[in-house]
Amino acid sequence: MPSEDKMRSSVQAYSELFNACDYEAIADLFSDDAVIIDPVGTEPKIGKKNIVEFYKMATRGGTHLENPGPVRIAANTAAFPLKALIKGIKAENKAVDVDLPSGAMTIDIIDVFTFDEDGKITNMQAYWGPSNITKT
Amino acid sequence: MPSEDKMRSSVQAYSELFNACDYEAIADLFSDDAVIIDPVGTEPKIGKKNIVEFYKMATRGGTHLENPGPVRIAANTAAFPLKALIKGIKAENKAVDVDLPSGAMTIDIIDVFTFDEDGKITNMQAYWGPSNITKT
Repeated sequence: MPSEDKMRSSVQAYSELFNACDYEAIADLFSDDAVIIDPVGTEPKIGKKNIVEFYKMATRGGTHLENPGPVRIAANTAAFPLKALIKGIKAENKAVDVDLPSGAMTIDIIDVFTFDEDGKITNMQAYWGPSNITKT
Repeated sequence: MPSEDKMRSSVQAYSELFNACDYEAIADLFSDDAVIIDPVGTEPKIGKKNIVEFYKMATRGGTHLENPGPVRIAANTAAFPLKALIKGIKAENKAVDVDLPSGAMTIDIIDVFTFDEDGKITNMQAYWGPSNITKT
């Protein structure tokens, strides 16, 4: 089981590195064969190469992540609320398989990370849908 | 896929019925073979009989649930923050396999429900641990 400190550090680093558009460093938080499902119900992205591509896309559009609430730690998992503040995304730069409005928006998300023994994220599931988007 | 309205109604009913100590009605929100893992990492409770028993225990101790944030809907799942305000639990009435302090406490939780076609909950996972307990 990874330490709680390690899991909390990873959650904090995730938003900071995302906001710094450092997608290689974000991908390094994940294990080599990690799986991302964002949002839940869409096709998984599997493995480091696809994860780097995903964050290259996701960090476009001036997206800024905020962590508005406490991180819940249960066994080797962390679940936490996230807010994505997005300036605007062009259809061809869209990282997710969801219809998004044009212009600025905020998305209320809950992320769940599962960690391996080394504290790397093996699975990331993002819970959100069209009803969690507020045009801003 | 159940309708989003149905899933949101179920989430709202869950806290209301819990706070009314109506554990039979809570259990009716679940499918017959539903699985509860509360918190994640502990032994699953499976099937209606065990779910009724779980809520009989969980509603003791003057526990009151609040929904402090938006419900995230992704495909056939709902993820949402929960606050459990607990007056005090005797060891023999404890519903969960976690060491709890004596006296009043608040627990910050994230619940994830998965729904079947009929809008019944087939799986409930509660994310929280000792670090999410505040003595009050």
